[in-house]
Amino acid sequence: MNLTKHLYPTILAGGVGSRLWPRSRKSAPKQFLDLTGNGRSMLQEAYDRMLPLVPPDQIYVITNREYVETVRQQLPDLPETNIVGEPAARGSAAAIGLGAIHLQKRDADAVMAVLTADHLIRKPETLRQALVGAAELAQSGELITLGIEPSYPETGYGYIEMGEPIGVFNGLEARRVRRFREKPDLTTAQSFLEAGNYVWNSGMFIWRVDVIMAQFRQFMPQLYTALVALQNALGTPEEAQAFDAYWMPLQGNTTIDYGVMEKAKRVAVFPVDLGWNDIGSWAALLEVLPKDEDGNVVHARHLHHESNNVLVFSKDRLIATIGLQDMIIVDTDDVVLVMPADRAQDVKKIIQALKENQMHNYLE
Amino acid sequence: MNLTKHLYPTILAGGVGSRLWPRSRKSAPKQFLDLTGNGRSMLQEAYDRMLPLVPPDQIYVITNREYVETVRQQLPDLPETNIVGEPAARGSAAAIGLGAIHLQKRDADAVMAVLTADHLIRKPETLRQALVGAAELAQSGELITLGIEPSYPETGYGYIEMGEPIGVFNGLEARRVRRFREKPDLTTAQSFLEAGNYVWNSGMFIWRVDVIMAQFRQFMPQLYTALVALQNALGTPEEAQAFDAYWMPLQGNTTIDYGVMEKAKRVAVFPVDLGWNDIGSWAALLEVLPKDEDGNVVHARHLHHESNNVLVFSKDRLIATIGLQDMIIVDTDDVVLVMPADRAQDVKKIIQALKENQMHNYLE
Repeated sequence: MNLTKHLYPTILAGGVGSRLWPRSRKSAPKQFLDLTGNGRSMLQEAYDRMLPLVPPDQIYVITNREYVETVRQQLPDLPETNIVGEPAARGSAAAIGLGAIHLQKRDADAVMAVLTADHLIRKPETLRQALVGAAELAQSGELITLGIEPSYPETGYGYIEMGEPIGVFNGLEARRVRRFREKPDLTTAQSFLEAGNYVWNSGMFIWRVDVIMAQFRQFMPQLYTALVALQNALGTPEEAQAFDAYWMPLQGNTTIDYGVMEKAKRVAVFPVDLGWNDIGSWAALLEVLPKDEDGNVVHARHLHHESNNVLVFSKDRLIATIGLQDMIIVDTDDVVLVMPADRAQDVKKIIQALKENQMHNYLE
Repeated sequence: MNLTKHLYPTILAGGVGSRLWPRSRKSAPKQFLDLTGNGRSMLQEAYDRMLPLVPPDQIYVITNREYVETVRQQLPDLPETNIVGEPAARGSAAAIGLGAIHLQKRDADAVMAVLTADHLIRKPETLRQALVGAAELAQSGELITLGIEPSYPETGYGYIEMGEPIGVFNGLEARRVRRFREKPDLTTAQSFLEAGNYVWNSGMFIWRVDVIMAQFRQFMPQLYTALVALQNALGTPEEAQAFDAYWMPLQGNTTIDYGVMEKAKRVAVFPVDLGWNDIGSWAALLEVLPKDEDGNVVHARHLHHESNNVLVFSKDRLIATIGLQDMIIVDTDDVVLVMPADRAQDVKKIIQALKENQMHNYLE
């Protein structure tokens, strides 16, 4: 059986990436930016990674309606019908459900590979290998997740506790998922690493479309009802009305982890080394991106005296630094952000202050 | 005798202020900038300080020819003939000499008060009091300097060793100058403070114009010859030729301290508390300018989280800072400078690097 014939990489690209403010803005969130300096946005890289596996016609992008035009511009070879716009964000479970009904309508045997657009993956061939292996395993009705082998006790990610091996698929071993664990405290994270059978939850999933729909029916009946109604309305004159009636009232922002994965019975994981990084903050970029001969990550015109491990982003200004260590400087048209690398998580405090002070223009 | 009738405040405004780069640029050095945020440039403040003492017609500004137009714009009430442009910088002795020949031509009894345009003076009434006292003492042929009572052992200033009191003039005591001391090392500076009879050399001087000309003749004969020739040519068709022939060949950049004051016999000093600061660096501005409620010096739109003792200068961008202490951020149209306050002297290293890398546009 040709495993890729029914494989549909479905890229979630609706996030706002606020921890990478001021580069990541409401008008151009993280996934649409070229943060690695290679000339391709995160979304374009996610798309490019799939081209050796499937034709563009099999790739889908789920995003907010306000970004549909951006996706179209960034991925001109992607058929327009493969760009699915949510009228409003309703959490990752709903976004995935929306993708699923499109796929199911097209191909009853569709295998959906939910991918992220805002993560760095330096070993794309391993990702492709895992997707093919997972597509094979998915035929048996499993819900499959990709787990990242942890290199340190990160407290900002969810973890997956792995059980016994369940087989080798396309050269990669799959294991039973015992439990999803939410972001742990440091002691817990350390115990996970010592235990050895925990991986980071990558947010990438593979399943047959009919299987995930059955899970929605069982664990998220309100969402399921909405999805069925929407599916019937897709491409008809009633589509807009159906979104108003069924999508907009969806409650909360339920994640697929909480809504389905933590409750489902047959869940498997491929522990993989993808050279993965979620670059969820400027500090992560400083850690991950290549450094120049002075040990700085420079995406700007930079002149310095005794500075190292400094991340410098600017489009057109000269950034001059003296005696800086472990520092982040992000210069944009209207904002300059300066902070030590170990304070990068506090960007959200600035964003909060901007909202409180009615300075929304700096977020847009 | 009306002591102010013949008093001519002569403001030296030819400096480049490179330690305040990137705000201070070749096209707009320090003295032409509003660094204190009160809407007046340093030069305008130096001029304003003299208005309670003398009419605009008695105030002179010595500057480089390329800044004459800037001075004219900044001081519209100053007669144009009172702006004296040097065709090239030849040190403070020559600049003062150029002012002196203009004054001498106008008023044989002129008392020249050499003032700086790039220092902060928070007690202008004390300065005016000292100038009147010095004008009185100057009638006896003394060369007079204003000495700043030192508050800490600064190694970046010259010092003046004071001898015995020589009288009280306009309510202020003058003392004999024993010796000028160049910038000391820290141990020496500390011993100066302990001794108690040392003051900082402010670079402000008062003397009769005929007296300083006699000093030039004695101690700087080449300069004196040039000045006499230039004086004869002033206002004649031969003026430009005379500058080419006499000014341009002047050697070195001799300071008035080295050229005259250290050698002269009759030198007096008024030790004064002027609330003086040379704001010779961004760190000095951080120390001197008023802080906001969070302890930061903010001349910008600034939003911060846990930052204090930070100096933030920007015309129109938002500067966002997180977790910064004792830091300087200067944002201009084409440059952003970031450094810890205690590295502020190293701005000159950046300027050197700009020159070496042919990046002169960032200096202009």
